[in-house]
Amino acid sequence: MALIVQKYGGTSVGSVERIQAVAQRVKRTREQGHEVVVVVSAMSGETDRLIGLARAIQPQPVPRELDVLIATGEQVTIALLAMALEAIGCPARSYTGSQVQIRTDSAHNKARIRDIDGARVGSDLEAGRVVVVAGFQGIDRAGNITTLGRGGSDTSAVAMAAALKADECQIYTDVDGVYTTDPRIEPRARKLDRITFEEMLEMASLGSKVLQIRAVEFAGKYRVPLRVLSSFRQGEGTLISFEEENVEDAKIAGIAFAKDEAKLTVLGVPDQPGIAYKILGPISEANVEVDMIVQNVGSDSATTDFTFTVHRNDYDTALGVLRDMAEQLSAREVSGDQKIVKLSLVGVGMRSHAGIASQMFEALAREGINIRMISTSEIKISVVIDEKYLELGVRALHESFGLAGKTIL
Amino acid sequence: MALIVQKYGGTSVGSVERIQAVAQRVKRTREQGHEVVVVVSAMSGETDRLIGLARAIQPQPVPRELDVLIATGEQVTIALLAMALEAIGCPARSYTGSQVQIRTDSAHNKARIRDIDGARVGSDLEAGRVVVVAGFQGIDRAGNITTLGRGGSDTSAVAMAAALKADECQIYTDVDGVYTTDPRIEPRARKLDRITFEEMLEMASLGSKVLQIRAVEFAGKYRVPLRVLSSFRQGEGTLISFEEENVEDAKIAGIAFAKDEAKLTVLGVPDQPGIAYKILGPISEANVEVDMIVQNVGSDSATTDFTFTVHRNDYDTALGVLRDMAEQLSAREVSGDQKIVKLSLVGVGMRSHAGIASQMFEALAREGINIRMISTSEIKISVVIDEKYLELGVRALHESFGLAGKTIL
Repeated sequence: MALIVQKYGGTSVGSVERIQAVAQRVKRTREQGHEVVVVVSAMSGETDRLIGLARAIQPQPVPRELDVLIATGEQVTIALLAMALEAIGCPARSYTGSQVQIRTDSAHNKARIRDIDGARVGSDLEAGRVVVVAGFQGIDRAGNITTLGRGGSDTSAVAMAAALKADECQIYTDVDGVYTTDPRIEPRARKLDRITFEEMLEMASLGSKVLQIRAVEFAGKYRVPLRVLSSFRQGEGTLISFEEENVEDAKIAGIAFAKDEAKLTVLGVPDQPGIAYKILGPISEANVEVDMIVQNVGSDSATTDFTFTVHRNDYDTALGVLRDMAEQLSAREVSGDQKIVKLSLVGVGMRSHAGIASQMFEALAREGINIRMISTSEIKISVVIDEKYLELGVRALHESFGLAGKTIL
Repeated sequence: MALIVQKYGGTSVGSVERIQAVAQRVKRTREQGHEVVVVVSAMSGETDRLIGLARAIQPQPVPRELDVLIATGEQVTIALLAMALEAIGCPARSYTGSQVQIRTDSAHNKARIRDIDGARVGSDLEAGRVVVVAGFQGIDRAGNITTLGRGGSDTSAVAMAAALKADECQIYTDVDGVYTTDPRIEPRARKLDRITFEEMLEMASLGSKVLQIRAVEFAGKYRVPLRVLSSFRQGEGTLISFEEENVEDAKIAGIAFAKDEAKLTVLGVPDQPGIAYKILGPISEANVEVDMIVQNVGSDSATTDFTFTVHRNDYDTALGVLRDMAEQLSAREVSGDQKIVKLSLVGVGMRSHAGIASQMFEALAREGINIRMISTSEIKISVVIDEKYLELGVRALHESFGLAGKTIL
């Protein structure tokens, strides 16, 4: 007998019928002899409906009251799911974030979980009940209702699993697992049976939005085995694990990409200590988040060229900031490009395997794809290329590293 | 400076615009220098929508989970009202029944308030904030969410007022006060400026459904001055007070009536001790509530005739029960009449005034209205008459007791 935390998102509980289907799935897990804690989101569309009501009253709703409002979304779902379970003979009890004591800081609308009093649900589990918990919400020290921000239900589930020392945390979504890359780009993309936490973090932050990145970090920190599955299809999904078994075979887990990137370059600034801070300080003050950063020696050795990428939405802001300070920086020129994408190879195996980078560059060169920027970490290599080469680049790498072929992981 | 508890029902907060209108009214009260605690219901239609969702999943929803579900209705309103107040520069903070510690027993769907921790909102009031509290809901000793049953928000407001020792509890509804009788029956019905608690209880239970009877009882018990006002029009409403001032003038407060009554008679049962119990026991077991009861000596002195009234919906059930036991009771006959109404004169003044009853009977007789049953208490006289005489009877009494004329109370 295992203790399993299952999390169902808004689409999975989007209607009465879907809630009933979730109840059936939970019941099957119970019948396999497991104890089950279910964490649910608001029914899809409900949070947006509530925010619409709030905005009709106050264009910028008071954060504390917005949390009181939108926390009702999950509360509706927990009650309906508990009823659906009882209706099919599966004893259940629902708990709000406040009732189960999901304690957070006081940052309304984007609170972070501090701890959970797992003991509260212990007696229900002992009595053979399924415990249904509202995701996405908590309570601060003063008793105010808080929410974790969009997608926070994944984090709630992982935190519950950590607090209860659950054997597995299962995240049910509308995809059936983590793929080697986006199947819409490369139809031969293959579902991975296993992926490591580090790889998953890189895959998630690079645009494979299967899981909230906070949830993955949380699971890694508290060593909660995490599994991504489909609520609509059967299957084992993808297990996100700690052990790097078979690491000799697992060179590359997959190919992630980020579409909406833009690149900015400051050319010919004096190559002095502190120049990076002088450029990026004002960018950060303008609330622009910077992703890749590359600095190169310029055409003469006294100056340097400084390039970084931002989200495309922030391009105009960032360009304005750079132009305003170009003179002050004694920069020769400020330029930019909005039509770029980032493409990343991810895999813990590359740590112990030389030649991954050169194989990557070769595969891209063979297709005539020019690399505009390169950045590397322990387990990933990212390149910036022209937007028009996205699909071609993904497929070339997928092919080159044999991801569609035999099972690697 | 006074501390005022204001309660707004579902119709008063039925839309974004109406919530904004309530905020304006609350702000005006603040500007008059008063501290304000607002208790609100769910937006009209919302509770029914939620119950509809529940029934789609479970025809008889688990009571505990139904409470978790429908408590979200008021939670939405408190958040929106607090935002609407903040939006017009009136600092406010919302509280659920759980947060403000409205402690109830554990009778889900029909819980009764035990006590309220008034201290929780004290610091907000001191800080100059309006406190917005979810009506209708509370929390039991184990931390489960409970609801008070339909209309319970009035009781929440009165209980808040009692816990905070408020100077007045104002109930805003869609009528502008308590009338001498229903203006739809007698257009000359007059709004009362004052009415005593006892009178209000009789008026409420007899069909003038302005206030929940539990709320009036609560207010009487804890001596909370209660005022009924309109949320849509200006005016002082009706104050429900303790003192029977000017009692010498205040013979009659008003005329109440109950339309949906039915009458059942058991004729010629042996006049023995326990016969009333023998008849009413099985009626009660069939979950039929009995209102008026009259027992008369029958045509011969060894038997008696026993008559009582029930709600018209229960008529068939009650008649069936009586017919089943007629033989066992040795009753000569069982008969009934579904087309009757009850009409009541209410007024604390009748205690000290003789002749009210005879004046009432005379006024009805003058219009040719036959009285089928009579029942009296300290402050009311009720008669049962044929349904067709309802309007005529109400107007005759209204006229006879001069209720439309000069101010009596």
